[in-house]
Amino acid sequence: MKIGIVGGTGDIGEGLAMRLSSRHEVVIGSREEEKAVHSSECCLQTLRQRGLPCSCEGRTNQEAVDTSDIVILAVPFSHVAGTVSGLRGLAGKIVVSPVNPMEKRDYFVYTPPPEGSAALMIQRLLPPGARLCTAFNTVAANKWRALDQELHLAVPVCSDDREAKATVMELINSVPYLKSYDAGPLAASCMVECLTPLLLNIARFNRMRDVGIEFR
Amino acid sequence: MKIGIVGGTGDIGEGLAMRLSSRHEVVIGSREEEKAVHSSECCLQTLRQRGLPCSCEGRTNQEAVDTSDIVILAVPFSHVAGTVSGLRGLAGKIVVSPVNPMEKRDYFVYTPPPEGSAALMIQRLLPPGARLCTAFNTVAANKWRALDQELHLAVPVCSDDREAKATVMELINSVPYLKSYDAGPLAASCMVECLTPLLLNIARFNRMRDVGIEFR
Repeated sequence: MKIGIVGGTGDIGEGLAMRLSSRHEVVIGSREEEKAVHSSECCLQTLRQRGLPCSCEGRTNQEAVDTSDIVILAVPFSHVAGTVSGLRGLAGKIVVSPVNPMEKRDYFVYTPPPEGSAALMIQRLLPPGARLCTAFNTVAANKWRALDQELHLAVPVCSDDREAKATVMELINSVPYLKSYDAGPLAASCMVECLTPLLLNIARFNRMRDVGIEFR
Repeated sequence: MKIGIVGGTGDIGEGLAMRLSSRHEVVIGSREEEKAVHSSECCLQTLRQRGLPCSCEGRTNQEAVDTSDIVILAVPFSHVAGTVSGLRGLAGKIVVSPVNPMEKRDYFVYTPPPEGSAALMIQRLLPPGARLCTAFNTVAANKWRALDQELHLAVPVCSDDREAKATVMELINSVPYLKSYDAGPLAASCMVECLTPLLLNIARFNRMRDVGIEFR
């Protein structure tokens, strides 16, 4: 199973690549291929230094889509509509949205688009047959990158495609200690996306860092 | 510090009374005083059987308000506006909303009122000077009542009144292992209330029971 990370040179994308490429084939995508190649080299070097295997290459976003079975949209909410609209060939692919629409005021606020969530907006922009899942929303970029720390965290997943959801949950569970949870249909994504500004508020007002959740 | 539980004979109210009355003076309120007296007797008996102290009495909702410093509105969302509008003397009191507006469809959905959250709606109905906090939203009734189980859970708290928030956080932390977190101003309550339908979905779709959260 090949995983393409659109926006793979950003904070979350880079961290995801580091965690996933020791267990899966990863293609880091970027608008600029050069950046993707650089990120890929950093990822290889980081993992090799730790004696970990690494399967990782840098490509354009479109090539990351073309060569992958699972496409993760590691793009900020403000860019996701433009990015998705510019990509071809997403029909039939499993597409993962870790996107959280939010604003920073005196505190972080969940600000979903008119569709009700980033996921439902992305669904409207995807071609029929794209198999959209909401996942990876609540793990902070720094946690992904801190390879010395195990991720004892929960990752809720929403989708209307049962098989795609099961595949993404398996991908999540392939990272040690990370635990996927079925959080319902795609329409329930707002309640998952909304966790991220909540966690940022918890971090901010309690002087914590990179807060994640566990269910118990 | 005396704690009045409006709607104290309901699921959450009863559980809260059991956990709090061994450490604080609790007044269980109900529309029908008889019911409150019965709940209070059950609570006394349950705690005594376990060799725990218990300070608990049953009164009307209005008397629970009148005799308490902290008033917990343990009322379902559908009744909270009517209940709050019918109570006098809330000015100057710390009022706690554990209320979560939601609907059960194929999955649980957060359905806030036009104000944006139950908390902001309640604020509009309270007299000036009432010191409103959002708290206790995410601990399931069965967890409150299962006195043999410690509550290793997080309780996020929102308020615009710094002192009231600190008092409520202290109350939460007085229950062993329960841990309060400052989740920001009252306007951030929607992100806390929204956790409850999410946790119900997690329970439902993963065959779990009475799911709560921890931050890490």
